[in-house]
Amino acid sequence: MKIDVLTLFPEMLEGVFGASILGKAKEKGIVSLNAVNFRDYANNKHNTVDDYPYGGGGGMVLKPDPIFAAVEDLLPENGAKPRIVLMCPQGETFTQRKAEELSGEQHLIFICGHYEGYDERIRQHLVTDELSIGDYVLTGGELPAMVVIDSVVRLLPGVLGNESSAVTDSFSTGLLEYPHYTRPVSFRGWDVPEVLVSGHHAKIEAWRREQSLLRTLERRPELLELVELTAKEKVWLEAERKRRSEQKASE
Amino acid sequence: MKIDVLTLFPEMLEGVFGASILGKAKEKGIVSLNAVNFRDYANNKHNTVDDYPYGGGGGMVLKPDPIFAAVEDLLPENGAKPRIVLMCPQGETFTQRKAEELSGEQHLIFICGHYEGYDERIRQHLVTDELSIGDYVLTGGELPAMVVIDSVVRLLPGVLGNESSAVTDSFSTGLLEYPHYTRPVSFRGWDVPEVLVSGHHAKIEAWRREQSLLRTLERRPELLELVELTAKEKVWLEAERKRRSEQKASE
Repeated sequence: MKIDVLTLFPEMLEGVFGASILGKAKEKGIVSLNAVNFRDYANNKHNTVDDYPYGGGGGMVLKPDPIFAAVEDLLPENGAKPRIVLMCPQGETFTQRKAEELSGEQHLIFICGHYEGYDERIRQHLVTDELSIGDYVLTGGELPAMVVIDSVVRLLPGVLGNESSAVTDSFSTGLLEYPHYTRPVSFRGWDVPEVLVSGHHAKIEAWRREQSLLRTLERRPELLELVELTAKEKVWLEAERKRRSEQKASE
Repeated sequence: MKIDVLTLFPEMLEGVFGASILGKAKEKGIVSLNAVNFRDYANNKHNTVDDYPYGGGGGMVLKPDPIFAAVEDLLPENGAKPRIVLMCPQGETFTQRKAEELSGEQHLIFICGHYEGYDERIRQHLVTDELSIGDYVLTGGELPAMVVIDSVVRLLPGVLGNESSAVTDSFSTGLLEYPHYTRPVSFRGWDVPEVLVSGHHAKIEAWRREQSLLRTLERRPELLELVELTAKEKVWLEAERKRRSEQKASE
C-alpha cells in the first residue's frame, strides 16, 4: 500500500512513521509512507498556501491551487484513482469498519489542514472521503491522519506478528475486554483473582466472558445491542442491569 | 501545565512535541512535555515490562510494578495529586467537554500501552481516568495521548494566537462549519458563491447560518438536538428534512 500525506508540518509525521508497527511495515516493504509539504506547490512568490475568506470573518482558508497541484502530482500514470481523504471535523466519524474498508485500497492520499479551513472546492471536486476521528477540536489534521493510518496499516497482511494479539482488539469482538493480570500474583496486597490461577480452563473462560459482559454493561451498554448473546446471558444481564439501577436509586 | 507521557516508544512523541502549537506552547513556557520510558523502571535483569497473562490466552500483559514505579517517581513532593490518564479502548470516549475539564489541571500523566493489555491493578489502584479517542483499534496509546494533549494544550491561555480562529471550531458552536472560500474567485471554472463577494454582510451571515444548518442536517443530524434554534429555523429545517427524505424515497 502506498500512503501519501499532504501537510505543512512533515516533521510531525517522522517520529511516528519511523517507529513501532509503521516503521516495521515500511521496513518489510508492506507500506510506503510519504509526507509531502504542499507549500512546495504554492504557485506564487511568497509560497502562500492560504488567504482571507471571501465574505469576511476571522481565520484563514487553505487555497485550492496548491492542494490540487500536490494531489495531481501524486496520481499514478496508469490512471488508477486513489482514495483522497480530507481530515476535518465535519467528516464522517472514523470507525473500525472504515479502517477495514480503507485497508483494501492500493493507494491512500491524506490531506491535513492546520488551524485553518479548506476552500470548499477541495471538498467538492478533489476528495473522495472526509473523515473525523472524534468530537473534539485539534490544531490540525496530522494527528488524525496518523491515527487513521495506524489503524489501517495494522490490518494489512504481514504487519502484525506474534507481539500483537486479540488483547487490544476490543472493537473486533464487539465487547469490551475482560481484565488481564500478569505477575506478580500479589502486588502490594492486591491479588490476582483465584480463578485465573486455578488452571480450570472452562471456569476461566466463563469468568472472562462474564467480566467482558459486565464491563460492557457498565461502560458501553449500547454495544450489547450489537452482540450475539445466549438466552442465559440475556437473562443474567437483565438481572444485573436491574440490580445496578436499584442500587443507584437507593444511593 | 506539566504533562508526562509514559511510553515504550518515546521517539514517537518527539516530532509532534517539537512541532506546531505544542512546540510553541513549550517555547513560551506554558506547558512542559516530557516522555518517560517506563522500561527504565523495570526492576529485573532483562528490563522486562510485560509477561504472560494468568489464565492463559494470547498476547502479553503490561506488569504493574514498572508503571507504578514510573508514575510514583513523577508525583510532586507537595502531595498534590495529578490526573493519571490511561489510554485504552475500554475507556470513556474522549470529547471536547473532557478536553475542557482536563485543561483546568496543573499536571497530567498519560500511560500508553502498546499492542498489549494492562494488568488490571493499574486500572483499579493507580489511574484516575481511562480514555479512548474513538471506536477503532490502534497499535498503541501514543497517538491517542498526543490527540488528547493537542486538544487540551490548545485551550490553555496564551497558546493560540491570531493564526487560529473559530474556523476549525466545529464543536464549539455546536453546528458543523459553513463552507469557506478564498482566492481565486474562479478556480477551474468553479466559482465562489455570489453572496460571498456581494459585500452584503447580513446576507452573508444568513447564508452561512443556513449552510451550517444544512451541513449539520446532512452529516450529523443528532447535533441539531443540542443547539438553540429560532422558531423560523426549526420550521425551515423540518421542511428540508421532509424534502430530503421524499427525494430519497423517490430515487
